[in-house]
Amino acid sequence: MSITPFLPPVRTLMGPGPSDVHPRILEALSRPTIGHLDPQFVQMMEEVKAMLQYAFQTKNELTIAVSAPGSAGMETCFVNLLEAGDKAIVCQNGVFGGRMKENVERIGATAIMVEDEWGKTIDLNKVEEALKANPDAKVLAFVHAETSTGASSDAKALCELARKYDCLSIVDAVTSLGGSELRVDDWGIDTIYSGTQKCLSCTPGISPVSFSDKAVAAVKARKTPVQSWFLDLNLVMGYWGKNAKRAYHHTAPVNAMYALHESLVMLQNEGLENAWQRHYKNHLALRAGLEAMGLEFVVDEANRLPQLNSVTIPEGADDADVRSRLLNEFNLEIGAGLGALAGKVWRIGLMGHSSRAENIMLCLAALEAVLGNKVKTGVALAAAQKQLSA
Amino acid sequence: MSITPFLPPVRTLMGPGPSDVHPRILEALSRPTIGHLDPQFVQMMEEVKAMLQYAFQTKNELTIAVSAPGSAGMETCFVNLLEAGDKAIVCQNGVFGGRMKENVERIGATAIMVEDEWGKTIDLNKVEEALKANPDAKVLAFVHAETSTGASSDAKALCELARKYDCLSIVDAVTSLGGSELRVDDWGIDTIYSGTQKCLSCTPGISPVSFSDKAVAAVKARKTPVQSWFLDLNLVMGYWGKNAKRAYHHTAPVNAMYALHESLVMLQNEGLENAWQRHYKNHLALRAGLEAMGLEFVVDEANRLPQLNSVTIPEGADDADVRSRLLNEFNLEIGAGLGALAGKVWRIGLMGHSSRAENIMLCLAALEAVLGNKVKTGVALAAAQKQLSA
Repeated sequence: MSITPFLPPVRTLMGPGPSDVHPRILEALSRPTIGHLDPQFVQMMEEVKAMLQYAFQTKNELTIAVSAPGSAGMETCFVNLLEAGDKAIVCQNGVFGGRMKENVERIGATAIMVEDEWGKTIDLNKVEEALKANPDAKVLAFVHAETSTGASSDAKALCELARKYDCLSIVDAVTSLGGSELRVDDWGIDTIYSGTQKCLSCTPGISPVSFSDKAVAAVKARKTPVQSWFLDLNLVMGYWGKNAKRAYHHTAPVNAMYALHESLVMLQNEGLENAWQRHYKNHLALRAGLEAMGLEFVVDEANRLPQLNSVTIPEGADDADVRSRLLNEFNLEIGAGLGALAGKVWRIGLMGHSSRAENIMLCLAALEAVLGNKVKTGVALAAAQKQLSA
Repeated sequence: MSITPFLPPVRTLMGPGPSDVHPRILEALSRPTIGHLDPQFVQMMEEVKAMLQYAFQTKNELTIAVSAPGSAGMETCFVNLLEAGDKAIVCQNGVFGGRMKENVERIGATAIMVEDEWGKTIDLNKVEEALKANPDAKVLAFVHAETSTGASSDAKALCELARKYDCLSIVDAVTSLGGSELRVDDWGIDTIYSGTQKCLSCTPGISPVSFSDKAVAAVKARKTPVQSWFLDLNLVMGYWGKNAKRAYHHTAPVNAMYALHESLVMLQNEGLENAWQRHYKNHLALRAGLEAMGLEFVVDEANRLPQLNSVTIPEGADDADVRSRLLNEFNLEIGAGLGALAGKVWRIGLMGHSSRAENIMLCLAALEAVLGNKVKTGVALAAAQKQLSA
């Protein structure tokens, strides 16, 4: 065996995440490792917490970064709030609602599913009916920004419904955090999880989460221990909590935390609302180009995520072949469809550092080069440019 | 709020982990992020798997890196092998055996504890008695290298006992992998987990695990789903498995995997047995210096881990003050005692890239400077040097 160092190609990442990581963040990642109980590391964690509170727009004391990817952030919310025998109402309008169901059932709890078509927003009326029909439900769980389709749902209204029917809300904000409007306190969100590798443009592997005081009280009032030792917030709070004794729980991914810190400093410097605005403006430009080519969006305009653009694959185009050519000829990654949309759509991400004029231009030019006469040629770039200059 | 970039101090890490990370590995960490389903990333994962098989000395097909720290690696082994109602025999001679018990109980299984004094090796006779008394036990779990004490146990003999009584073994090798002899196939280990931040000298955050075919068959024969979606190996195998369709499960921590790859390339180049030898040789030098100062080891010579040296805090020395001065005056981190040994011992790590002559000299010189006349002065460095030149 003689394996040599891995030198990755330089890609432009316009799939559903990871997004392009800014060189500043990659540099932060490579700063010297220190101990996870070093006083300076502990101080840095406090800063990460403060900046996550800003990104989530919350004062929640329990706002931390779980030391594992977004799917572990999801599991953190479910295993801490739910116990065997509990009931949760789970909205599904894409892949991740289905994963929520898996989480509920593996706890020994019951998932009442409210299903909408993939690519549609969550229907508030159906959710209210389910809440009425299940007065014993403890949790309402939904995806704010469905990464599998590019549809957003009305998190504010859904959380109002949850409160009205005395449920705690669990909100998936993996793709929304930092990319489009999200206000945890104003919207009354009880628990929320996200990922670092989408609109924060950090490397993958960490999951920011936030729990309201009401959610923390529910965790503390559990009758049974949390089934996961690693994700038990009662233990994690001993490490992250205010005035905590910094009790050793697990070894934090030190360098990954440097990177998250740096990405949050960049978000703070740009300003959260400016970041939302940039994602929206760049979406309009990409959209102008894609529509000029004749490509159609999967999601209605009203519920379309600016950071994740799902378009229907044009007739005659071979899904895998097109993506493979984009990757091999232009080092450009776009996303395939997932689940029910596999083979039918492409998902083009404009997340975080990927949401830039030059990426839009590359994507349109490369798509046109590869798709040739399967789309309308010669018009996309000007349409996008016009929108960028608007 | 105006938080600035975090510029960590440059420490020498001689605690129980993280250990010093080689600059090559930090550089690998900062290479450009690519997609977790990129064909080149998938190819790199195959190389990581092959090199982990080498590090573990196994042909186990299911040899992978869990996308979370060692405690999640521990949980991966327990939640995949055990179901509610099962029985596990758990050996405890330090902190981590206690954590194993927590894992067993949160599954709804029963833990039969075999306890030994902290700092002692696991007593084979007591284990055999427990196995005899519990013919319905499914698992024997133990820590090969107790990070909380520096004691090693006879993993080969313990796995033989497990087989004799028809149990599957779960082995904690967080501190042993890459630092001292460990032979998964020869010793008949069924499931094993480790961490990246100890003797592999990689950044913390990833947990290498390996499952024998017999263990995989047990996972596949479960009657109930694995309680953790994130750690369910039935799903993870779809991503890592041979001829797997690379089914999307979670977003791998791409850059952390670059770092693990690089650390394994370095291990391959040094040679596994050479790495074990280096850890042992450097331990002898540190030990000569520490003993010349009059410091006493917690663990008997026969069961002492070369990579983790626990010594009794000398009379009159203030634990926290000494560690704090080492950190502030010399940027040197050594470890505090944990659990029953808190305030009584220091844990001095010589793991991976930290296991170097210059670290030994710095540690001895700094300890002497800070401890002053609480130890015998002026003799430690020569004693260590003599051993290094031997």
